[in-house]
Amino acid sequence: MGDCAFCSIAQARIPARRVYEDKMFLAFLDIAPSNPGHILVIPKEHHETLLDLPDAISARILGVVKKIAAAATQATGAQGFNVLINNQSAAGQVVFHSHFHIIPRFKGDGLKHWAKKEIPGQEMDAICRKIVSFI
Amino acid sequence: MGDCAFCSIAQARIPARRVYEDKMFLAFLDIAPSNPGHILVIPKEHHETLLDLPDAISARILGVVKKIAAAATQATGAQGFNVLINNQSAAGQVVFHSHFHIIPRFKGDGLKHWAKKEIPGQEMDAICRKIVSFI
Repeated sequence: MGDCAFCSIAQARIPARRVYEDKMFLAFLDIAPSNPGHILVIPKEHHETLLDLPDAISARILGVVKKIAAAATQATGAQGFNVLINNQSAAGQVVFHSHFHIIPRFKGDGLKHWAKKEIPGQEMDAICRKIVSFI
Repeated sequence: MGDCAFCSIAQARIPARRVYEDKMFLAFLDIAPSNPGHILVIPKEHHETLLDLPDAISARILGVVKKIAAAATQATGAQGFNVLINNQSAAGQVVFHSHFHIIPRFKGDGLKHWAKKEIPGQEMDAICRKIVSFI
């Protein structure tokens, strides 16, 4: 898509700190990193969210993510990493070209995981049944 | 593994609110949810982190995640969802059997995304080169 920032990066029309590229995928440093070595992996094809990725892409992208995450943790000396996929703006998605965040993690890096919510058991049972009904 | 909580759930030796199961994968509600409909998808086989998943698993698991995430967002009326994979304790992993969190998201649900860090451009360039050297 002409006005998509990540399509522009994929087509090298705007610059990025690229770490990996193959026929289908591209990985580059996030310009607004949560930690050193924060990388985005994208399919070159434009698809809005994870749910829109064709099976040919979703079957291959984790292979790329594994390769890049291993290199990023070694290069930065991280003690772990997160993979995060935000889908739709309510989930923090800003660029609507599906992307996988790889975030190297360091003990005491100050990134706080989300709080847990108290949900009564009966309500959990009802949610479970309802989800099953949609599968 | 005998002492792994998720192996025990996969083998139905301890209960869980199951939403989906096939030969290779299981999905169930997280008992400590960040939002209603927070689900974990696991391979039944024991592997510690994403990096340990055999290709046969990592090529298939996103297909399951897509199916379950679509059902969970419909069932809960969510406006989006995150997929989160924590690898190693520095990244918030608690159970060392690789699992993919699906977290339905609602506008104003109070879950705050991680802050960005200021990293000078020259340092970003150096990180980029170092990661490339490990790929």
